[in-house]
Amino acid sequence: MFDELRTLLGDRVSVSDAVREHHSHGESWHAPGLPEAVVFPTSTDEVSAIVKICARHGKPIVPFGMGSSLEGHVNAIHGGVSIDLTRMTRVLRISPEDLDITVEAGLTRLRLDAHLKNTGLMFPIDPGADATIGGMAATRASGTTAVRYGTMRDNVLGMTVVLADGQVITTGGRARKSSSGYDLTRLFVGSEGTLGVITDLTLRLYGRPEAVRAAVCPFESMAGAAATVIQTIQLGIPVARIEIVDEAQLRVVNAYSKTNYPIAPTLFFEFHGISDVMVDEQIKAVEEIAREQGATGFQWASTLEDRNTLWTARHNAYYATVASRPGARAWTTDICVPISHLAECILQTQADLKAAGVVAPLVGHAGDGNFHLIFMLDANDPKEFEQISRLNERLVERALKFGGTCSGEHGVGIGKLKYSAKEHGASLDVMRSIKRALDPDNLMNPGKLIPEP
Amino acid sequence: MFDELRTLLGDRVSVSDAVREHHSHGESWHAPGLPEAVVFPTSTDEVSAIVKICARHGKPIVPFGMGSSLEGHVNAIHGGVSIDLTRMTRVLRISPEDLDITVEAGLTRLRLDAHLKNTGLMFPIDPGADATIGGMAATRASGTTAVRYGTMRDNVLGMTVVLADGQVITTGGRARKSSSGYDLTRLFVGSEGTLGVITDLTLRLYGRPEAVRAAVCPFESMAGAAATVIQTIQLGIPVARIEIVDEAQLRVVNAYSKTNYPIAPTLFFEFHGISDVMVDEQIKAVEEIAREQGATGFQWASTLEDRNTLWTARHNAYYATVASRPGARAWTTDICVPISHLAECILQTQADLKAAGVVAPLVGHAGDGNFHLIFMLDANDPKEFEQISRLNERLVERALKFGGTCSGEHGVGIGKLKYSAKEHGASLDVMRSIKRALDPDNLMNPGKLIPEP
Repeated sequence: MFDELRTLLGDRVSVSDAVREHHSHGESWHAPGLPEAVVFPTSTDEVSAIVKICARHGKPIVPFGMGSSLEGHVNAIHGGVSIDLTRMTRVLRISPEDLDITVEAGLTRLRLDAHLKNTGLMFPIDPGADATIGGMAATRASGTTAVRYGTMRDNVLGMTVVLADGQVITTGGRARKSSSGYDLTRLFVGSEGTLGVITDLTLRLYGRPEAVRAAVCPFESMAGAAATVIQTIQLGIPVARIEIVDEAQLRVVNAYSKTNYPIAPTLFFEFHGISDVMVDEQIKAVEEIAREQGATGFQWASTLEDRNTLWTARHNAYYATVASRPGARAWTTDICVPISHLAECILQTQADLKAAGVVAPLVGHAGDGNFHLIFMLDANDPKEFEQISRLNERLVERALKFGGTCSGEHGVGIGKLKYSAKEHGASLDVMRSIKRALDPDNLMNPGKLIPEP
Repeated sequence: MFDELRTLLGDRVSVSDAVREHHSHGESWHAPGLPEAVVFPTSTDEVSAIVKICARHGKPIVPFGMGSSLEGHVNAIHGGVSIDLTRMTRVLRISPEDLDITVEAGLTRLRLDAHLKNTGLMFPIDPGADATIGGMAATRASGTTAVRYGTMRDNVLGMTVVLADGQVITTGGRARKSSSGYDLTRLFVGSEGTLGVITDLTLRLYGRPEAVRAAVCPFESMAGAAATVIQTIQLGIPVARIEIVDEAQLRVVNAYSKTNYPIAPTLFFEFHGISDVMVDEQIKAVEEIAREQGATGFQWASTLEDRNTLWTARHNAYYATVASRPGARAWTTDICVPISHLAECILQTQADLKAAGVVAPLVGHAGDGNFHLIFMLDANDPKEFEQISRLNERLVERALKFGGTCSGEHGVGIGKLKYSAKEHGASLDVMRSIKRALDPDNLMNPGKLIPEP
């Protein structure tokens, strides 16, 4: 197999320990899995040829982007070949009139942003990490702006996918909507590399809003913050971001980002509009709700620089947490519940953490009912690992009890596998049927998303 | 089989000619197909039992709602059993705080609207016809408000589905987003009954907007109207409706609805906002664009009554066309293109119609790049049928050439089957694999959506 890969790719095949180690894990802590080789294709045709070689040799295929996966999606737990897509970064076409763009899967979010800089357009999906667009689609990523702009599910119009036999298909198209055929685009979005390798994507773009304002707003209680979120959403106020942060998270954020946010349950807001008047109307409505719910004051960030400081601090919440316990590993988890249960779910979770004596900062995309915990652990301490596993399990059970999901945006990977049966019931058999139909030899990222028998 | 169905359902099985005829076709003209029996279940369990009986006897299963299908989805072209879901109309639960509701598949859009009347909530998807919610999901319906609120794809959170073997699964959930597992909800939305029978659905709701205004605006040219649409979308003005209507359509609308809209390429607008100020801002921005593009004046409808007159006239465009040629059958078709090609696509289509000497009113959801033609034909005149088939084919080819789709919102059914291969290429094989995996005996609405070999 290696010879065939080398004939195809020359020096763009690596079997070095360092490269394989780098491709054996993502960002959050899960048991690593070493690939036998790492390949660096530069075109869909090369990906197709690689997949055909792997298929012939019965070798697993694990797509790899920036390695920012949080549930072990990229860990080559059954060996095989890691396909690193980061050399496929071209912008293939753009239509400002139609607000769409086609990019290769290895382009990262920030590089796409840079490409759009002088166009007046933006791609708003923002998971925090500088992930590849292909990886974001594969895990159905979302982030801070999903409350306004949706998730990758809503913003991928079509894609090119290499199937398990090396065949190349295109899904979807450039029309804004279609009632023609099964929605394969939505099937591949969130399929975590288990049905095929995404090689390019057509994305929706948006005009950059003419007016933007952001604010930080502490509350007397978590319940008041959550109630503010619910009423904001209910009233249909089109907030662009509405993030919830707890005291533990603000402590590490302040320490890491040299900020001085009050230590209280806090909402981070951003408002977008076609004019200042439209933004002011939103702000007026939200301020009124927040005041009634025990907000202790808005700290506004109207300039781009102030907003950058605010959102950089928010985005660095994960790294701030990692820095708070040097030497430890981060294990981050996320769940999502109907927003009416958000406060209850957060309060029960905080009580659970307190009872266990575990500090795990909480930060979330409150408008979606989605929040994260960031656990820090000594991966070599089985007792600590066991304790955190139990806390995570109780968190997921709480989410499912409230009608929610075991993962709002990180995906299943290997980290959430054991909750799939409980969440999906008989639907899991349908997922298995689809997986078997499209990947009969179980070579596409095996062992992820669907529990093995 | 009939005995078993009767034992299960009593008199809720019909083999009468009149009932079978009613269940042999939808609204638009396609060769009808008589079912052998029509059943009227009242629960998911009954649907499951019916499907098991049909499966045992190798009989096709054709789900039926209000019969407002436009591409022959409900025609029992291979016989079998038509499952009429219109006795499953219960509202199973509602959560105003979470803005979601679970309803049975046979509830119609207007009955759902009536149910929500005093709640301050709405379900905005509006295909015009009073279709069942299940049917709207099965065809991935949308309509006038999709530009703001999306299509059924975006507004179904989860569903209960009876599979080909009678097994009952639930997909999705009540969380606003999830990265857990394949997106089965989106797979069943738009699957046209070919993968299972949808029996209930959990839907997103929205707060009714505090401020609403609507307007009709004629233009000097179709190109000017289309340019107004493009710029409105590009600027991110959150219009709730932006509909395009041509001269031929306005003539029959005026005759049917006793209105007196000027005969010109025209846009119908609706603006929603959390306050009058927000609506005024949108209007100001759109008026400026429209004036530059040759708008000849806005006719405002601010009261509920005026708005109802306006949208009733728009919604009755289809019936107005039907009434314009008594005795003839209506055959309506729809395509969707990237909006930059909308004007070109419309102008070429109008030229094509003119060259053929065929009058086919045009009306469309311009913000999505989606428009309809309504052909009127004598179904017994093979020459006329042939001519309109050719015009329809050229329309679809034009849409595909512009990167669009053969159906923006009506679905494939049998009417658009012959364009599937051209639109989807190798993806059609993936659809076939999924169909085979979930319905190995090809009993679920056979002959629809996927061309038979």
